[in-house]
Amino acid sequence: MLTAEARKTSDTNSPVERLHALVAGDMVKADALIHTRMTSAVPLIPELARHLIDSGGKRLRPLLTLAGARMAGYEGDGHVKLAAAVEFIHTATLLHDDVVDSSILRRGRDAANVVWGNKPSVLVGDFLFSRAFQLMVEAGSLEVLGILSNASAIIAEGEVLQLKSANNLGTTEEHYLNVVSAKTAALFAAAAEAGMALAAPSRTATRAMHEYGQNLGIAFQFVDDALDYSGRQALMGKAVGDDFREAKVTLPVILAYARAADRETRAFWGRVIETGVQAESDLARAIALVQETGAIAETLHRAQGYADAACKALAPLPPSEIKDTLVTVAEFCVERAY
Amino acid sequence: MLTAEARKTSDTNSPVERLHALVAGDMVKADALIHTRMTSAVPLIPELARHLIDSGGKRLRPLLTLAGARMAGYEGDGHVKLAAAVEFIHTATLLHDDVVDSSILRRGRDAANVVWGNKPSVLVGDFLFSRAFQLMVEAGSLEVLGILSNASAIIAEGEVLQLKSANNLGTTEEHYLNVVSAKTAALFAAAAEAGMALAAPSRTATRAMHEYGQNLGIAFQFVDDALDYSGRQALMGKAVGDDFREAKVTLPVILAYARAADRETRAFWGRVIETGVQAESDLARAIALVQETGAIAETLHRAQGYADAACKALAPLPPSEIKDTLVTVAEFCVERAY
Repeated sequence: MLTAEARKTSDTNSPVERLHALVAGDMVKADALIHTRMTSAVPLIPELARHLIDSGGKRLRPLLTLAGARMAGYEGDGHVKLAAAVEFIHTATLLHDDVVDSSILRRGRDAANVVWGNKPSVLVGDFLFSRAFQLMVEAGSLEVLGILSNASAIIAEGEVLQLKSANNLGTTEEHYLNVVSAKTAALFAAAAEAGMALAAPSRTATRAMHEYGQNLGIAFQFVDDALDYSGRQALMGKAVGDDFREAKVTLPVILAYARAADRETRAFWGRVIETGVQAESDLARAIALVQETGAIAETLHRAQGYADAACKALAPLPPSEIKDTLVTVAEFCVERAY
Repeated sequence: MLTAEARKTSDTNSPVERLHALVAGDMVKADALIHTRMTSAVPLIPELARHLIDSGGKRLRPLLTLAGARMAGYEGDGHVKLAAAVEFIHTATLLHDDVVDSSILRRGRDAANVVWGNKPSVLVGDFLFSRAFQLMVEAGSLEVLGILSNASAIIAEGEVLQLKSANNLGTTEEHYLNVVSAKTAALFAAAAEAGMALAAPSRTATRAMHEYGQNLGIAFQFVDDALDYSGRQALMGKAVGDDFREAKVTLPVILAYARAADRETRAFWGRVIETGVQAESDLARAIALVQETGAIAETLHRAQGYADAACKALAPLPPSEIKDTLVTVAEFCVERAY
């Protein structure tokens, strides 16, 4: 019988799953390490951490780390430690994010802050963040520690920056892009770069992986923000309208508001986003508006631009199956929205 | 005219001020670095960080780092980076602590969570924590990174552990000691050890500084917890009863509750701590009870034991003016309570 991990990686339908399959052995080790190192003498810590870590995340960021290390021909076990560290950083930011956004759901389950309250979510986030740095120290590369600590600072700056756009229809496209670049893309970039940097290849090679991750991260977030207003999302078994209900000002909203046909429509956006007062039928109207105005199409079009840039960024790297798969991952990132 | 920093260090009345004077040049550099590195393109970050960093903290932890490096004859500038990193870790934990405790005041000023709300406090804490790791990376020692990342994980575990004792009169002395050891003493220990470890002296020497910091940290916290119920605190211009109002179960409360003379007194503690329902006259009664039962005297007696252990821990280190001053700092830590 196949284990859950093996089932996940034996299904080669999507490029992400093919990438999983190419680093399957490493990912099994990283997953084991994630579970070993989230333990603590304080039982609440693994209990809360497991809630999020075992909730079916795609492990996309650690996957980039493992892929980078493999492409560079790395032969130690530091990349497995880094992969676990990257997932811990990601999990810590999700925990703090959900506290800050007062989120109700995360990956289709009750958010940790709903189950345990804000206090443990903040503190277990701090713990996982510290664990991440312990693992990075064990990986033994100051350069990699630099890459990931820089990314952590940028992520936190992005999170603070995002506070300014909450319930704020005055949010510019530039501000949104700055938030996405910092909050989401910085970790994609660092995760991809860190794995490769461990093998200490050329600056060109690590730079290529950084650019790939950065552009993939932006494309990924743009598509996520578009899917939140899409019927595709419902087909994939995920909730639609999470961002809307939290009155988040994402690119689809910025564009739809800018393209609002009349004062009444602008008043609608003002009510649902700026005051946050929403009736049950409002989501359907918001979805209709972002579709009709072409805001979704424009968001996906821009995502395509970043996905293309991600693919191009890989050009300096020598040919390999992993490289080819990373290209298809970037392409698929936008395709999944259609 | 003397700068604020010079005034602080030229006043040699207390041992802490003498220690400041012995590393005055380094501390000026560390303070400058703290202010340079808390900046960000996101203005809210330095604004919020400055509120706490410039609120008159004693910089005790970075002082231990600088003292350790000087004793080991370290000649680079990594110790200044570590000192700033240690202060950032401390500041980040205070920010998260105040969110978790819903604190109103910190160092006599409105707590950051009161001024800006919980969200920025959580996120700026994350930023400062990341900045701390960036500075540690710049200091360039994997060993030191290990010391401080281990301490960070222990601190977070201590914070989570403490949640169990909130409003809980069933908290044991052992649990309280575990919380204090992790939450407070771990950073004292790591700060003291890290500075010395940078110069890579003998394992005996770094161990001595670790033990010193660990015991000093426990003594320091015990005395702080006692002072919260003491008239001395009022004399020193600090608020009395902060812990009481937050219904914290500290050693004075654990001991006074265990020594409660009758059912009515136990009911009093149950009301003010477990239900948190407090009238204005309750603080005076609580102070009377912790004094009468000898709970304060016992807390200070135990603090003295840890201060003695801190002094003894320094024995393996060669004689120096800094070593002598560290001994007097540990002695003074308890003396200030009388």
